[in-house]
Amino acid sequence: METNVEQKKVITFGEILMRLSPSGKRLLSQSNQLNFFFGGTEANVAMALANWDNKVEFVSAVSDDFIGKSSLAFLRQSGVSTLHIQRNPHPMGLYFMEEGTSLRSTQVIYNRLSSAFANIDWEDVKWEDILKEAKIFHWTGITPGISEKTYQGLKRALRLAAELGVEITVDPTYRKNLWNYGRGSREVLQEFISISNVFFGGTNEINEILNTNFSNDKNNFIKAAQELMKSYPSIKKVFDKVRISQGASSHRIYARYWNGQQYFSTDEIEINPVTDRIGTGDAFVAGIIFTMDKYDEQSVLDFANASCAIKHTIVGDVNLASEEEIWKIAKGNIEGRINR
Amino acid sequence: METNVEQKKVITFGEILMRLSPSGKRLLSQSNQLNFFFGGTEANVAMALANWDNKVEFVSAVSDDFIGKSSLAFLRQSGVSTLHIQRNPHPMGLYFMEEGTSLRSTQVIYNRLSSAFANIDWEDVKWEDILKEAKIFHWTGITPGISEKTYQGLKRALRLAAELGVEITVDPTYRKNLWNYGRGSREVLQEFISISNVFFGGTNEINEILNTNFSNDKNNFIKAAQELMKSYPSIKKVFDKVRISQGASSHRIYARYWNGQQYFSTDEIEINPVTDRIGTGDAFVAGIIFTMDKYDEQSVLDFANASCAIKHTIVGDVNLASEEEIWKIAKGNIEGRINR
Amino acid sequence: METNVEQKKVITFGEILMRLSPSGKRLLSQSNQLNFFFGGTEANVAMALANWDNKVEFVSAVSDDFIGKSSLAFLRQSGVSTLHIQRNPHPMGLYFMEEGTSLRSTQVIYNRLSSAFANIDWEDVKWEDILKEAKIFHWTGITPGISEKTYQGLKRALRLAAELGVEITVDPTYRKNLWNYGRGSREVLQEFISISNVFFGGTNEINEILNTNFSNDKNNFIKAAQELMKSYPSIKKVFDKVRISQGASSHRIYARYWNGQQYFSTDEIEINPVTDRIGTGDAFVAGIIFTMDKYDEQSVLDFANASCAIKHTIVGDVNLASEEEIWKIAKGNIEGRINR
Amino acid sequence: METNVEQKKVITFGEILMRLSPSGKRLLSQSNQLNFFFGGTEANVAMALANWDNKVEFVSAVSDDFIGKSSLAFLRQSGVSTLHIQRNPHPMGLYFMEEGTSLRSTQVIYNRLSSAFANIDWEDVKWEDILKEAKIFHWTGITPGISEKTYQGLKRALRLAAELGVEITVDPTYRKNLWNYGRGSREVLQEFISISNVFFGGTNEINEILNTNFSNDKNNFIKAAQELMKSYPSIKKVFDKVRISQGASSHRIYARYWNGQQYFSTDEIEINPVTDRIGTGDAFVAGIIFTMDKYDEQSVLDFANASCAIKHTIVGDVNLASEEEIWKIAKGNIEGRINR
Amino acid sequence: METNVEQKKVITFGEILMRLSPSGKRLLSQSNQLNFFFGGTEANVAMALANWDNKVEFVSAVSDDFIGKSSLAFLRQSGVSTLHIQRNPHPMGLYFMEEGTSLRSTQVIYNRLSSAFANIDWEDVKWEDILKEAKIFHWTGITPGISEKTYQGLKRALRLAAELGVEITVDPTYRKNLWNYGRGSREVLQEFISISNVFFGGTNEINEILNTNFSNDKNNFIKAAQELMKSYPSIKKVFDKVRISQGASSHRIYARYWNGQQYFSTDEIEINPVTDRIGTGDAFVAGIIFTMDKYDEQSVLDFANASCAIKHTIVGDVNLASEEEIWKIAKGNIEGRINR
Amino acid sequence: METNVEQKKVITFGEILMRLSPSGKRLLSQSNQLNFFFGGTEANVAMALANWDNKVEFVSAVSDDFIGKSSLAFLRQSGVSTLHIQRNPHPMGLYFMEEGTSLRSTQVIYNRLSSAFANIDWEDVKWEDILKEAKIFHWTGITPGISEKTYQGLKRALRLAAELGVEITVDPTYRKNLWNYGRGSREVLQEFISISNVFFGGTNEINEILNTNFSNDKNNFIKAAQELMKSYPSIKKVFDKVRISQGASSHRIYARYWNGQQYFSTDEIEINPVTDRIGTGDAFVAGIIFTMDKYDEQSVLDFANASCAIKHTIVGDVNLASEEEIWKIAKGNIEGRINR
Repeated sequence: METNVEQKKVITFGEILMRLSPSGKRLLSQSNQLNFFFGGTEANVAMALANWDNKVEFVSAVSDDFIGKSSLAFLRQSGVSTLHIQRNPHPMGLYFMEEGTSLRSTQVIYNRLSSAFANIDWEDVKWEDILKEAKIFHWTGITPGISEKTYQGLKRALRLAAELGVEITVDPTYRKNLWNYGRGSREVLQEFISISNVFFGGTNEINEILNTNFSNDKNNFIKAAQELMKSYPSIKKVFDKVRISQGASSHRIYARYWNGQQYFSTDEIEINPVTDRIGTGDAFVAGIIFTMDKYDEQSVLDFANASCAIKHTIVGDVNLASEEEIWKIAKGNIEGRINR
Repeated sequence: METNVEQKKVITFGEILMRLSPSGKRLLSQSNQLNFFFGGTEANVAMALANWDNKVEFVSAVSDDFIGKSSLAFLRQSGVSTLHIQRNPHPMGLYFMEEGTSLRSTQVIYNRLSSAFANIDWEDVKWEDILKEAKIFHWTGITPGISEKTYQGLKRALRLAAELGVEITVDPTYRKNLWNYGRGSREVLQEFISISNVFFGGTNEINEILNTNFSNDKNNFIKAAQELMKSYPSIKKVFDKVRISQGASSHRIYARYWNGQQYFSTDEIEINPVTDRIGTGDAFVAGIIFTMDKYDEQSVLDFANASCAIKHTIVGDVNLASEEEIWKIAKGNIEGRINR
Repeated sequence: METNVEQKKVITFGEILMRLSPSGKRLLSQSNQLNFFFGGTEANVAMALANWDNKVEFVSAVSDDFIGKSSLAFLRQSGVSTLHIQRNPHPMGLYFMEEGTSLRSTQVIYNRLSSAFANIDWEDVKWEDILKEAKIFHWTGITPGISEKTYQGLKRALRLAAELGVEITVDPTYRKNLWNYGRGSREVLQEFISISNVFFGGTNEINEILNTNFSNDKNNFIKAAQELMKSYPSIKKVFDKVRISQGASSHRIYARYWNGQQYFSTDEIEINPVTDRIGTGDAFVAGIIFTMDKYDEQSVLDFANASCAIKHTIVGDVNLASEEEIWKIAKGNIEGRINR
Repeated sequence: METNVEQKKVITFGEILMRLSPSGKRLLSQSNQLNFFFGGTEANVAMALANWDNKVEFVSAVSDDFIGKSSLAFLRQSGVSTLHIQRNPHPMGLYFMEEGTSLRSTQVIYNRLSSAFANIDWEDVKWEDILKEAKIFHWTGITPGISEKTYQGLKRALRLAAELGVEITVDPTYRKNLWNYGRGSREVLQEFISISNVFFGGTNEINEILNTNFSNDKNNFIKAAQELMKSYPSIKKVFDKVRISQGASSHRIYARYWNGQQYFSTDEIEINPVTDRIGTGDAFVAGIIFTMDKYDEQSVLDFANASCAIKHTIVGDVNLASEEEIWKIAKGNIEGRINR
Repeated sequence: METNVEQKKVITFGEILMRLSPSGKRLLSQSNQLNFFFGGTEANVAMALANWDNKVEFVSAVSDDFIGKSSLAFLRQSGVSTLHIQRNPHPMGLYFMEEGTSLRSTQVIYNRLSSAFANIDWEDVKWEDILKEAKIFHWTGITPGISEKTYQGLKRALRLAAELGVEITVDPTYRKNLWNYGRGSREVLQEFISISNVFFGGTNEINEILNTNFSNDKNNFIKAAQELMKSYPSIKKVFDKVRISQGASSHRIYARYWNGQQYFSTDEIEINPVTDRIGTGDAFVAGIIFTMDKYDEQSVLDFANASCAIKHTIVGDVNLASEEEIWKIAKGNIEGRINR
Repeated sequence: METNVEQKKVITFGEILMRLSPSGKRLLSQSNQLNFFFGGTEANVAMALANWDNKVEFVSAVSDDFIGKSSLAFLRQSGVSTLHIQRNPHPMGLYFMEEGTSLRSTQVIYNRLSSAFANIDWEDVKWEDILKEAKIFHWTGITPGISEKTYQGLKRALRLAAELGVEITVDPTYRKNLWNYGRGSREVLQEFISISNVFFGGTNEINEILNTNFSNDKNNFIKAAQELMKSYPSIKKVFDKVRISQGASSHRIYARYWNGQQYFSTDEIEINPVTDRIGTGDAFVAGIIFTMDKYDEQSVLDFANASCAIKHTIVGDVNLASEEEIWKIAKGNIEGRINR
């Protein structure tokens, strides 16, 4: 922990939401208390990287009240820089969750469309200062789906990042309850992917973007990745994680990767019981970004898959496992013995 | 939810108990707090039906104090009518529970034999008003096992219901720690089953009533059901749910049904982990009563089995799952994905 | 309790909000759990009245999700009718609160301007059905301050109520963080007060409405009330409660009343410590509405003041004290002995 | 603590009840959890004495289930002997409490009339073994008010104690919700007081027993005590504590004492806020019994009053303060500074 | 329970620690509350035996403050004698734990090297009084690893026990974070095992002590046990429990035993989910000590294995299951049905 | 908040401890959960200053485990720099607290004498880097009282600070349970005060240091301050806060100040109830340091007194109130109204 590895500065841009959920598998109607956390896909990636001692900055807008203040304190806990986060009088975005178990599904309600982040003053963000020492800029499909303002904010950031030669990674998550401010998700994603370099997603995501129809097996994954790279030559790497669910409480996962020439995949890991599956994809992304330039490609994929796996055992949105714990799992040590 | 389906008015009569149990799988001796819920087999059926927008009335007696008042508030949450519930100075019935897990069994202690319900003023219940618009009257073997007063109360209700042509459904649950006020369970159940129409139970229950010895396989179930119908020709349908336990935390269940001519059964559903198995039988009964006259017989059985299954994932005594969630499981969708 | 007093049907129209606050006097940044309640000034009045066995209907719009569903269950606990509450896809309105203590003030954040209620389909509310058996319609200055839709909804209701001869009571609460959709608070309040009959408020509220400058002593209160009645002859009664705060934890309160001819006031009651001061004004209003036509004027004022006082000792937004408990305090019994 | 002072063996006989109450000043209808404690007037005296390193035995009957087992574990924590406590299949006695605050009163519901203790097998208690090394036997008016069995049990114990020359102390607490099994409270108390030696109570209690009408001032207290001693010459000492309540949260207390010749009284102590007033009288009794033969009479009264005072700051039924803490308060040190 | 079986007096000597851990599988950095228990290998054995109505004394030193006092209260709950436990001004030993789940390991931090027990006044323990009626003295490898003082204390106890013919049982647990006060673990264990009679451990433990290299299969276990008995002829019995972990949440266990002539083993029991694995080995040891002289050898082993198994379902360090519950599992009844 | 006022860099050096205490005024023996916070006098000063947007660095040593890691995350929440905090294998220092109320005192137990901080590698701290941009270095009498290592660490820091012209502030808190490693408190404090500039303390502290005997009135305070300045001419300012306790729940405080020529004092503020008095002195110190060079002397004293006052209403060790809230109180606004 906190070793002195040379640090890469990573920038993420997105919304940090307050998450509220009853404890003990209760429904909200059976509760009078809610546990809360802060999270959001880009913030989750930022915090995981900061926990592994990377230099990270998260750019956003939060509410100018005691919730927004708490979200900043939360980010700072791991050492994420909050220097360029705006505060405005709009309310904090939030989501409520009833956690599923076994054959009962998790239910999520969002309250984010009029939030502080949706109303970000996008022209006021000092991207030049923020990006000048950055090595990586990471974005997701959530941010441009929220509002015209967040779309414009991301656009400016991506253009400048591309100009400055910052490596751009993308997780094109599609959410059906967004994209209602006027722009179409496909056009926007195509526009922004065309200047991105590393793609997180599988055949579903590629089908969504290219309007194709690949099935989910290995060969189709490779073909889809090739098709994506052909359409968007800036994309050099396609990382995918695959989940096999047996209800909400027992999952198996593995990861696969196409680097343009070669296919890699990991062993399957079983997680049972699943403690919290929110943010497991972000733990995967953070795992890749962290190791990408430091280890051989198989190790990179194994680490990211293990990072994703162990996140299922940690409550909240953020992967708080140490680098050491993850390598242990990446190397197949999943007995779960007591560390005294 | 709250759609305008034509509603059937269902009446149940029984005791609503306060349930108290330590959280986090603790023993009571390790705790200083208890979670509490209200429940009881007949109230559970009533509340599940009300949650699915049926018109339901629950008839009972509760304590005239802040616990009794809370039990009424609890019933009203789902919209169950509490108009004819008596309040008297006897204490609320209650039970304490240490929840088991894996190979440790759940332990239950009752405190109900001197309760408000056991002391109901049975002659004062306005059954004529209550039953006049009822379609279904549901009773269980618990009620007549508590006291002479509850026996007499049920007897009056059943006679009037039969007279008025209300359909009578029965779950003849046998509890060895009841039936100590003077009457024998077999005689009473026989008396009341002889005017009932729908029977919930399998070979165990039938053996108890008929003093027979059927084993638990399919053929014996059919034979037992036939024998029951022969003895009590008012019985037209026999619904049974079967549970295969692997400890307290992992169960498989399926349902079966004999309609006098034909045998139906469902697929097995696995629940792992089991969150709360109290009231799973009541969820099954409610599922049958809700769908019985509206769907084909296989769908009825599938819905009730799914209702029973999902109740295992919900804390408390009552099935709070929506109709939509249950149909999804009834149709085999048990992946437990997140609903955003 | 639940005695058979002749019931008056009261209608209230407004927003029911979810309230979320840390426990144990913590700040949100020190917490990971929030207690929640449902409340809102009009709903609080409705629930208190229903707890005292009045027939009450609350008209509103809530979110079509598990929070909205819970808010309906909450209302039904006391027996408030929820028959005409709309459900729409907008999020539930909510507020966050950090509870003050001693010299530290309570901090409140609202998230309601884009809520289900703000987006009510006001033309679709069946006011004719709702008001046909009503005796009293109660409104507050919150509702018309939220959005054009809630303004229009209230306007229709008030006009019809006035036509049908329903008595109209008003609590013209002014909130500076509302009234930003285009209309001015003074004009709207004047418009609606001109058809109302009972006014809850003191010199502050009257100054706000009449643009006057009365100070807060007895004589000025009487003059202000007279001035109000002169400007709006429909107003026949002016009820006011007065609070003397010594920090957030110790308050003294009394009530006063001008009936057009005569001044009434109560003794001062000290509350120390204050457990929860939200909804104390609503407890006062409910106390007046409940007793107004049944008791002499001094008793009415004493009951309402005692209702306000005891609410300070009850958590949540709603006065849950029984009629009997309140009369005891109204008659000066404030020793707080144990009731065994 | 745990010093080797010569210990007196004290025996108490009564019911230990489970107490259940919502936390945070909530009403039960607002809660889904209850805190629980064990307590009961005689058990409270026993435990306080054991905490101060006296040899104590508590004689009772508890339920033969996990609640009864926990009550024994609770008693043993302080070192009270549970050797002669019966276990039977009747349920544990219990009480529910909604804690008051400020002008709201505490509400208590009992569930004890059919309890294990009410059904004690009184002929089976080995009083000879229990009393043979006893110096003091303490009883209260609760025990003979519960049932004929508890009356008979106490009678046997008192007769044997008197025979063996054990000093008998009595707290003749009267509870209106007891005494419904057939015997009259006055006759029974007179019968038993006539062989007791130390009386805890003031003019109310003496009026109840002697059917007199003394008011509560100093002179009347002395006259009442004299009258009591005249009627029951076995009584040699009358100890009384006096409480002045300002609501449920702020009390002042002092103690007074008549030894047959001389009057003693303590200074008044203010307790604000009151954390828990249950068991404060028992803390007073325990304080007297503990010091009675070891210190001068003024110190005895001061210690007992301080013991009563500090119990108001301790949750649960039992005084857990150390001897040292109590002496500090008895000597007037009530600043409440931090002990590091 | 609490039947009058003839009791053997068992003495254990060791440290009782306070254990603190976040609830709900949280990391400490995500929590603001910690659950706490008391435990420690020798205390766990003592308490389990006392719960099964054996006469047991635990010898130790605890802090002279409110934590030490609480640890004594905890021990007394089950009836363990605390008569000879010292209290000194050093702090209570404690450990913090982040509970693992699935593939995430449990993390433990100790704070015990300067504790009250490490500083025990070993010359002051009255071993003659303590051991004079003892049948069994149980020790573990933890105690002599803490400090020179605890080493000396144990040495004196063992010598006297051996002299008095008390049967000596040993669980030579090796902990790498102990043994840093100067003595080597192997030498000390060899010294003390040479006067012990019953050995709890398998090939790992024997390898550690004998500096051998046995693998873990049945034949090697027998050979290792034989080798141990040859080296230390006082050892007459070797009991071992074997665990197969599939992550932190699912374990299978069985037990085996070499009595010098014959090998015994039990069936495998699966525990899923594991609620708490701390103290499962101590539950095994207690199971053997309890039954060793009362049942046939296969039953002894079955009981101990079942005791170990059920401990996995109980929170805290101590096995609180009743003898009856354990025999049920020992006999293969692991369905986990509800006991009403 | 987070305005761009010119920031002074403040350095503090000391121990950050974990604080553990039962909730709800329980004793530890009545609890199974403990709330925890991090705090310590120097860390409290640092965090309060950082919350008001000062640049602050805290220098210390923490344990190299999940507790130490959490303490760093805690500090970073407010933006305190943790760059030069060492991590070593010794355990985290901690303290347990039973919170008093009314006349019951708070009890505190420390476990810190063998902690990570007590074992700091004092020669390894990079004071040159740390102090080079510092304006103020704050120390307390706790740090040199813990161990020789912390004494040496502080000595080096103070010497360098003095050399570099950094202003040195001192709070010479004396704790009787420290100072047991060999050095005398008076000698050490005299040595270090002789190079300090701002003194926090009153007659008690000055008497301790100068071995004088001043009483606590205004004149004696002035004389004592003059005497101190005569003995240690580097001291230019003496700030004192005075507390009048009425039990643990109600305090009055005021502050006074001698600047060498002139006496200043504030009005008295009453706090009732006291929520948490730990860290109130540190809130005073932080208030002075924050305002000292920016406002007139009376305002400085008023702000610091208000900062101290509001800390009594905030749980935990750290003053989290905003600058705005404190000014409001400093200006006499203590009504505690709701801020909507």
